[in-house]
Amino acid sequence: MNTQKETNQKFARESYTEMNELVLPNDTNTFGNLMGGRLLYWMDICSAMAAQKHCKNVVVTASVDNVSFKRSIKLGEVVTIQAQVTRAFNTSVEVRMEIFAQNLPEGTKVKSNEAYYTFVAIDGNNKPVPVPQLIPETDEEKKLFDEALQRRELRLILAGKMEVKDAKSIKKLISTVKTV
Amino acid sequence: MNTQKETNQKFARESYTEMNELVLPNDTNTFGNLMGGRLLYWMDICSAMAAQKHCKNVVVTASVDNVSFKRSIKLGEVVTIQAQVTRAFNTSVEVRMEIFAQNLPEGTKVKSNEAYYTFVAIDGNNKPVPVPQLIPETDEEKKLFDEALQRRELRLILAGKMEVKDAKSIKKLISTVKTV
Amino acid sequence: MNTQKETNQKFARESYTEMNELVLPNDTNTFGNLMGGRLLYWMDICSAMAAQKHCKNVVVTASVDNVSFKRSIKLGEVVTIQAQVTRAFNTSVEVRMEIFAQNLPEGTKVKSNEAYYTFVAIDGNNKPVPVPQLIPETDEEKKLFDEALQRRELRLILAGKMEVKDAKSIKKLISTVKTV
Amino acid sequence: MNTQKETNQKFARESYTEMNELVLPNDTNTFGNLMGGRLLYWMDICSAMAAQKHCKNVVVTASVDNVSFKRSIKLGEVVTIQAQVTRAFNTSVEVRMEIFAQNLPEGTKVKSNEAYYTFVAIDGNNKPVPVPQLIPETDEEKKLFDEALQRRELRLILAGKMEVKDAKSIKKLISTVKTV
Amino acid sequence: MNTQKETNQKFARESYTEMNELVLPNDTNTFGNLMGGRLLYWMDICSAMAAQKHCKNVVVTASVDNVSFKRSIKLGEVVTIQAQVTRAFNTSVEVRMEIFAQNLPEGTKVKSNEAYYTFVAIDGNNKPVPVPQLIPETDEEKKLFDEALQRRELRLILAGKMEVKDAKSIKKLISTVKTV
Amino acid sequence: MNTQKETNQKFARESYTEMNELVLPNDTNTFGNLMGGRLLYWMDICSAMAAQKHCKNVVVTASVDNVSFKRSIKLGEVVTIQAQVTRAFNTSVEVRMEIFAQNLPEGTKVKSNEAYYTFVAIDGNNKPVPVPQLIPETDEEKKLFDEALQRRELRLILAGKMEVKDAKSIKKLISTVKTV
Repeated sequence: MNTQKETNQKFARESYTEMNELVLPNDTNTFGNLMGGRLLYWMDICSAMAAQKHCKNVVVTASVDNVSFKRSIKLGEVVTIQAQVTRAFNTSVEVRMEIFAQNLPEGTKVKSNEAYYTFVAIDGNNKPVPVPQLIPETDEEKKLFDEALQRRELRLILAGKMEVKDAKSIKKLISTVKTV
Repeated sequence: MNTQKETNQKFARESYTEMNELVLPNDTNTFGNLMGGRLLYWMDICSAMAAQKHCKNVVVTASVDNVSFKRSIKLGEVVTIQAQVTRAFNTSVEVRMEIFAQNLPEGTKVKSNEAYYTFVAIDGNNKPVPVPQLIPETDEEKKLFDEALQRRELRLILAGKMEVKDAKSIKKLISTVKTV
Repeated sequence: MNTQKETNQKFARESYTEMNELVLPNDTNTFGNLMGGRLLYWMDICSAMAAQKHCKNVVVTASVDNVSFKRSIKLGEVVTIQAQVTRAFNTSVEVRMEIFAQNLPEGTKVKSNEAYYTFVAIDGNNKPVPVPQLIPETDEEKKLFDEALQRRELRLILAGKMEVKDAKSIKKLISTVKTV
Repeated sequence: MNTQKETNQKFARESYTEMNELVLPNDTNTFGNLMGGRLLYWMDICSAMAAQKHCKNVVVTASVDNVSFKRSIKLGEVVTIQAQVTRAFNTSVEVRMEIFAQNLPEGTKVKSNEAYYTFVAIDGNNKPVPVPQLIPETDEEKKLFDEALQRRELRLILAGKMEVKDAKSIKKLISTVKTV
Repeated sequence: MNTQKETNQKFARESYTEMNELVLPNDTNTFGNLMGGRLLYWMDICSAMAAQKHCKNVVVTASVDNVSFKRSIKLGEVVTIQAQVTRAFNTSVEVRMEIFAQNLPEGTKVKSNEAYYTFVAIDGNNKPVPVPQLIPETDEEKKLFDEALQRRELRLILAGKMEVKDAKSIKKLISTVKTV
Repeated sequence: MNTQKETNQKFARESYTEMNELVLPNDTNTFGNLMGGRLLYWMDICSAMAAQKHCKNVVVTASVDNVSFKRSIKLGEVVTIQAQVTRAFNTSVEVRMEIFAQNLPEGTKVKSNEAYYTFVAIDGNNKPVPVPQLIPETDEEKKLFDEALQRRELRLILAGKMEVKDAKSIKKLISTVKTV
C-alpha cells in the first residue's frame, strides 16, 4: 500500500494522533475537576501534532471552533484525545478531535466532547506555506471533508472576514432552514 | 454609590478582571511563538475569575466560542487579558475577553484577539446554582448584553441542543440577511 | 467477541496504551536534547496507565528494568510511547514499552529504546491486591509472556530478594551459556 | 494628554501593572496554604513588568526589601499584585507592590502585604543602561518618591555597600530618633 | 554523641540543609539569566526544610530579609543553597542561607548571595506552636546567634510592629555609630 | 591537599552531590504517594550533576540500571538523593545514588532505594569525549569501583551489545555460583 497518492496528497488517516494524559492535582479546580483551560491546552498540542503530520511543516493555531464541555472530568482520570485532519485548504488544515474521559480502575470510558481546531503551516520566517491536499477514504471522513467548507465559512463570518451573503454553503443551509 | 442594585443583581464592571502573563520558554513552540493552547489556558483562568466575581460561587467552563488567533506572540512578551461578564442567564454567565500582546522594552501593545467563554456556577455537589442578574451600564456593555442572546442561541445550535428554527434571534438575523 | 475469557483473566491487547508528548524547552538540556529523566517520567505515566487498565486498581511503580538510551531526542520532536502488559503475577504486572522519536515536519520516526516497568496494584490502604491473569494471543505476546519469568527472577536477584541458585529460569539460561 | 514630559522622563502611573493569579494545588503546602516562595516568584514577575514598562529595557532583579507575610492565603483564592515604579535612579528603579488575597466565591478581599523590589536595566551584554527619570504626580506617589532615597540607603547599608555614617537620610532619621 | 542536649534544645548543625537545582529554560529570562523570583522560590523551599528539621512541625514563611542579587546565574548552571537555623525564638526561627552558582563543565563555583528567612511553626489549625531552643556551637554559629536579635528588631521595625526607641540592640548599634 | 592527582584523574568524593526535594501535590498519585516517574526524574538530574562534576563536560544519560521501589513516599515528605561517581570508563561514568525519604516534622529518615545511572560526556556536536579517570579512596569506594565492571558487563548484555560468553566478570560470577 502506498501512503501517498501523489506528492501533494495525503490520506486523512495518516494524520491520526492519540494523546493520553493523566489528570494531576495541578490540573484541577478546588472541587477536584479538570479545568477547561488545561483540556484546551492538551487539545491544542494533540491537534497540532496531527496537523504537522499532514503538513510536514511547523504549524501555528489559527482558530478554535465552539467547544462545549458536557461532563466534568475528575482528578486521577485519564483524558484521551483522538485527532485527525478533516480537510486541507491552501495553507491551512482543519483538525477534528474526539475527547474521552477514562476512569481506569473502574474501567469506564465516556465521550466528553468533540472539537475543531485549525492550523496554518509556516516556514522559519512565520510565512504561510502550501500544504498537501487531503484525501478522505471512509464514509465518515468524506462527510467531515464535505462539511468542512461550511465550518470554514462560519469561522470566517464569526471572525469578521466574510459576510453572510458571500458564504455559499451557509446560505444553502439557511435556505433549507427557511423552507422548513 | 452602592455596588449592587439588589441582592440578585450586579453591575457588569464589578466582574472586571485583568491578568498579565510573561511568555516563558515553555510556553512557546520551536520558533519562539506562544502556543495557542497556553493562551486558551490563561484565558480560561482569567475569565473564570471574572465569572466567580459575579456568581459568588465556584464556576466550571461550559463552552468556548470561536477564537481566532491573528498575530503571533513572542517569547518575552507580556500577554494582557481583560475579562468582564456580559450577561447572566439562569445558572450561567457569558464572559468577554480582549487579549493584547505587549513588548515592554519596545513599548508596543497590540490587540491580539477577543473571545467569549461561558461558565456554569456550581455548588459542592457539582449541581448548577442560580446566579445574580447582570446590569449593563455603558453603551458598550448594553450592546454586548443584547447580542449575548444571539451568541447563546448560536452556541446551543452548534452544540446540538437547539434547532435553527427555534432560535429566535438567529432567525431574525437570517431574515435580515435574506432581504439583502 | 468477549473481551474477558473469565472474570479473572484479560487479554494482553486490552491494556495497550499510547502516549504522544511534544518535547518542550523545559524538557531539554543546554544542547536542546530531551533529558533522560523526563523520558523516564513519561514512561512511568504511560506504563502505569497500561497497568491500571489491566488491574482495575490504582497501581504504584515497583521496579524499572535496565533502560538504555541510544539516540538523542531533540526539542520540538514528538516522543511516542507504546505500552502493553506482558504478564500478570499475583499482585503485580510487567509492562513493556517501545519508545519512538518523531520529527513531524520531516516525517521521520525512529525507535529510541524499549523498557520494562513493573507495578503493584494497591487498595486505599496501600495494601497489594490480586490482579487478573493475562492471556497472550499473538506470537510476540506469547514470547514476551514466557520470557517475563526470566526477567522477574533477574529483578529479584538484582534487588537482593532471590539468590542465583534459586532462580530456575536464570539457571537454565546460565547452563545453556556454559555449554557453549 | 502626552504621556511623557520629555524623552527622559515618565510618569509613575505609566508603569502600573496588575497581576491576578489563582492559587493551584502545587502552589500550596500540606495544609493548603500558599507557599511564601511562590508569592515571591509572582511578585518578581509582576514588579519586573512594571520596571520594564518604565525602563524600556530588559531588567534584572537587583534586590528585594524586607517582606513580611501576615496572613495565610488558601488554595483556590486569587492573589492580586499591584505594582508601580516609585523612583528611578541612574540605571535602576524601585518598584512598590501591594498584595491582596481574594476569595471570589465569598467576595472577600484582604490586603496581605506590601513590598519593594529593585531592578537594574540591562542591554544584551548584561551591562547596566540609563533609565528615564520618574515624575510622581499624586501625593502618595510623591511621598513614596521621597522616601525611596531612605530605603535605598538602607539597602546599600544592608548589602555592605555603604557605611551608616555616609547614609544621609538614614542619619537624619536616626537623629530624630535620638531626640526622642 | 547525643544530638539534643535536652528535649527543648537542638544544635544549629542539626538543621543544615543543602539544595542543588539545575537552571532550566523556564527559569530564565530572554537573555538566559535565572530570574530572581525563581531563586527566591527555591530559597524558600530550602530554608523551610531547615526550619522544619529544627521545629519538628510544619512551618510557614513569616518574613524575608533584604536580599541582593550580585551576579547573574546562567541557563545550565547549578544553584547550590546551604541553609541552617541561626536562632530560635518562641514560635519562630531565623534561617541563614548562602547561595552559590556552579558551572559544572567549567568547574567554577562562585558565591552569589546570602539571605535570611524567618518561619513560624504551626499546628494543623494554623496556630503558632513553641519551638525547641537552638544551641550554637562554632564561633560563626555563636556570632550569627548573637546578631539574630538585632536582625529581628530591624524586621519588627520595618514591619511596623516595633518602634525604633524600643529596639534595644538597634539603639545600641546607633549609639556606636553616633560616637564615630 | 591537592584535589586532583594528575590532570586526568579525580577522586570519587569530588563528584559528591546531594539534592533535597519537597514532594508537592503534582508529584503524587490519587493516594498522595510520590509517583515513581517523578523520583526517576530527580535521580536523573542529581546523578547528571555528579557526572558533570567529574567529567567537566555536558553529559547525557546513557542507561539506568534496575531500580526497585520499596517504600511509598508521601506528599509533604522530603526526598534526599546522594550521588557519587563510582568509576569512569573511556567516555562514560557510572553514578551510584542512595535515596532517602524524610518526614521532617516527625524527624524520621528512612532509606528508600539505591540505583546506578550511567552518563556519556559529550561536546557541542553531541560527540563523546574522554573523561578523567576516577580514584577511589575509601574501602566502600574501592568496592564499588571493582564491582562497576560487573555491572557494566550486565548492562551491555541486557542492551544486546555483548554476549554472555564474552563477559569476563559475569562468567566468573557464574562459575562461582555453579560451584555452590
